[in-house]
Amino acid sequence: MNVLEQLKEAVYKANLYLPKYQLVTLTWGNVSGIDREKGLVVIKPSGVEYFDMKSKDMVVVDLEGNIVEGDLKPSSDTPTHLALYRAFESIGGIVHTHSTWATAWAQAGKDLPPFGTTHADYFHGPVPCTRKLTKAEIEGDYELETGHVIIETFQDKDPVKTPGVLVHSHAPFIWGKDAMKAVQNAQVLEEMASMAQKTLAINPRTPPMDNVLMDRHFFRKHGAKAYYGQN
Amino acid sequence: MNVLEQLKEAVYKANLYLPKYQLVTLTWGNVSGIDREKGLVVIKPSGVEYFDMKSKDMVVVDLEGNIVEGDLKPSSDTPTHLALYRAFESIGGIVHTHSTWATAWAQAGKDLPPFGTTHADYFHGPVPCTRKLTKAEIEGDYELETGHVIIETFQDKDPVKTPGVLVHSHAPFIWGKDAMKAVQNAQVLEEMASMAQKTLAINPRTPPMDNVLMDRHFFRKHGAKAYYGQN
Amino acid sequence: MNVLEQLKEAVYKANLYLPKYQLVTLTWGNVSGIDREKGLVVIKPSGVEYFDMKSKDMVVVDLEGNIVEGDLKPSSDTPTHLALYRAFESIGGIVHTHSTWATAWAQAGKDLPPFGTTHADYFHGPVPCTRKLTKAEIEGDYELETGHVIIETFQDKDPVKTPGVLVHSHAPFIWGKDAMKAVQNAQVLEEMASMAQKTLAINPRTPPMDNVLMDRHFFRKHGAKAYYGQN
Amino acid sequence: MNVLEQLKEAVYKANLYLPKYQLVTLTWGNVSGIDREKGLVVIKPSGVEYFDMKSKDMVVVDLEGNIVEGDLKPSSDTPTHLALYRAFESIGGIVHTHSTWATAWAQAGKDLPPFGTTHADYFHGPVPCTRKLTKAEIEGDYELETGHVIIETFQDKDPVKTPGVLVHSHAPFIWGKDAMKAVQNAQVLEEMASMAQKTLAINPRTPPMDNVLMDRHFFRKHGAKAYYGQN
Repeated sequence: MNVLEQLKEAVYKANLYLPKYQLVTLTWGNVSGIDREKGLVVIKPSGVEYFDMKSKDMVVVDLEGNIVEGDLKPSSDTPTHLALYRAFESIGGIVHTHSTWATAWAQAGKDLPPFGTTHADYFHGPVPCTRKLTKAEIEGDYELETGHVIIETFQDKDPVKTPGVLVHSHAPFIWGKDAMKAVQNAQVLEEMASMAQKTLAINPRTPPMDNVLMDRHFFRKHGAKAYYGQN
Repeated sequence: MNVLEQLKEAVYKANLYLPKYQLVTLTWGNVSGIDREKGLVVIKPSGVEYFDMKSKDMVVVDLEGNIVEGDLKPSSDTPTHLALYRAFESIGGIVHTHSTWATAWAQAGKDLPPFGTTHADYFHGPVPCTRKLTKAEIEGDYELETGHVIIETFQDKDPVKTPGVLVHSHAPFIWGKDAMKAVQNAQVLEEMASMAQKTLAINPRTPPMDNVLMDRHFFRKHGAKAYYGQN
Repeated sequence: MNVLEQLKEAVYKANLYLPKYQLVTLTWGNVSGIDREKGLVVIKPSGVEYFDMKSKDMVVVDLEGNIVEGDLKPSSDTPTHLALYRAFESIGGIVHTHSTWATAWAQAGKDLPPFGTTHADYFHGPVPCTRKLTKAEIEGDYELETGHVIIETFQDKDPVKTPGVLVHSHAPFIWGKDAMKAVQNAQVLEEMASMAQKTLAINPRTPPMDNVLMDRHFFRKHGAKAYYGQN
Repeated sequence: MNVLEQLKEAVYKANLYLPKYQLVTLTWGNVSGIDREKGLVVIKPSGVEYFDMKSKDMVVVDLEGNIVEGDLKPSSDTPTHLALYRAFESIGGIVHTHSTWATAWAQAGKDLPPFGTTHADYFHGPVPCTRKLTKAEIEGDYELETGHVIIETFQDKDPVKTPGVLVHSHAPFIWGKDAMKAVQNAQVLEEMASMAQKTLAINPRTPPMDNVLMDRHFFRKHGAKAYYGQN
């Protein structure tokens, strides 16, 4: 199996984890992955049932959105994925879901604050919520503009330390070094978003966690001095 | 299999999705479908266990409620279904559930506001809650009057753009172009209702989403200019 | 199989629905059933794992609590069950759970108000919460006194129209005409308790439903004029 | 199978209950058990998938943290476990999870109050939340200091009557007389934490339960006068 076929298989399998982890309803959500050397992106086809899908149904597009391989239309969110791959060179996979709790934070238009080590093990700082899109952006090239407002939100952030975003009035986009890591980050974001609302329900004045604890946990799992896991 | 048998099979299968999607407890809930040419409605029998039911147990009634085929009594909610089929000529399937979150909104007597694109992908505007029924309506032909108060609520609404309603102090009725689409709308309504309360728990002053974003998402999936999915 | 063996089998099977319906954690909860002619009660043994249990492990006691049959100790809540069977002559099965939402209402010390038809289909009026037990009652014959405080709460209530109660700072007891009906009422109570809190989260000033609607729904399913279901 | 092999098997199986009981996401969480005679602790390896793990992957360390047996690195939380085994001589198993509701209480920085008998059946009094760790503790031997702050919190408490703790801005540690009992206590803590927030959502002014009722329930299941269960 060549490299592109392997990527299609990996993206296909990563997509199946969305219903398995209960991150999607019906055909909502999509996962993509990129082959940086070839500049090709593999993504879920639009509006197809997860359990009817096969690896060969994955659509291959170049970074400008031209279909390179595949009989089906790619996800309608493809322009958002491509904008992120072009802007964030260190990421290898992207997930979009309407998972319940993360979407509630996006609808509330609020950054998700870091309240504990569960958050800090994966995200270094709040998960930001974008500004609203303007009328012109919504009526124009909407999916591309969704990518642009995410990139604008990350002007002063490192997408490796903050592997996801809440799009205002919409839902999260999440990424990682490959498609499967992006899905795991999507699962963790959903859990963090659930815990954060519950934390505020118990104590509405809960402040964000101490920065020193956030640093300790994030860098325990990420970067040169990581000591969590077997590597 | 003739057309009516096919409809019985479709309605039977659509009913089984109610427990599968966790939209019902015990024998609650029911799905119907209509053959517009023949003017016949197929509906779940009353109070029967989902997993004891067979396709042949589905009851066939005409639009006035006369039993045309079937050994069992039709759902006690049949007069509500028939009133909706008579009034809303473009719908082909109807679902009634007491799904947890949608029922909570109905019990609270509140319209479900559109807070994000998850809502706007399926409902163009709030999901309305009916007024309360009067004493006379409740003590009279109650199930028929439930249909009438829904129709009254839709005087100035298009049931295609708003495929469901919350009946005050009761629960939702949801519809679609066929029985299975109605079940999917019921599943989506439940998810929307859950997300909306969570959104308000995070930010009690969340305003409804911008109309321009609502239009973009609804018409991305519905009507002549739709571009979501494979068609 | 004689009548008592049939009751043991029925009570055994009803107990297994508690974990199936997610009404219990670990070995919590118990179901009993009564043979009114013989004056014998069959009940779950104390602290035994649901999936290790067999029909023959059910314990048979008389209405004074003497063990008539069985090698294991009966549930520590047996005196509560027996007090209820002695006082409420029309009931045939009793369930005790610590199901999440009903227990939260019991801990909050609040009657569960009727907010909609889901409630009114099974309970005619609020689900009452008992007063707290006194120091003397707790330090005395505690499980029997739990039965007594329930009976005191029902001085002016019909246990057929209100098939359950919340014991203050503890959890619900629920009953029905047989063990399996009691389990179904326990499942419905849990769903009602969940819906009621969600209703108040959406609209903290939600009033109880109209009495006329409560009557219509309760008597649609119960009593001489019932027309729900196939009978 | 010798005693140490039996302990490895028991700890391995206890670990598998964490995902089964939905107490963990991904590779989060860990269970250990101790052989008090040999002074050896068996613990989950760090960052390994639950369903890829085998009994032989469990790591054996002495009470100072030296690896005695095993090819993998032990959990990064091992120094916390060892500090607790050294300080609490009566405990035989320890669990760490980030289970949703218990973690929300830890993030809110609040003791979990006893609101009812579900709590009192397992914990005699509130589940305490530790103070925050200091900057020096976080930047120093962090996992060991986590153990120390737990021990500090228990200066005036009996770890047998209060078999768990909430670590501030982090998550719970729970223990018991062996690994499997610790997992059961972790499951009960999660349920108690969920019920407590729901109790406050229904009645924000709910006081803690009466002490006399707490005593009755705790000592009904624990200590010399216990009468719950078959022993």
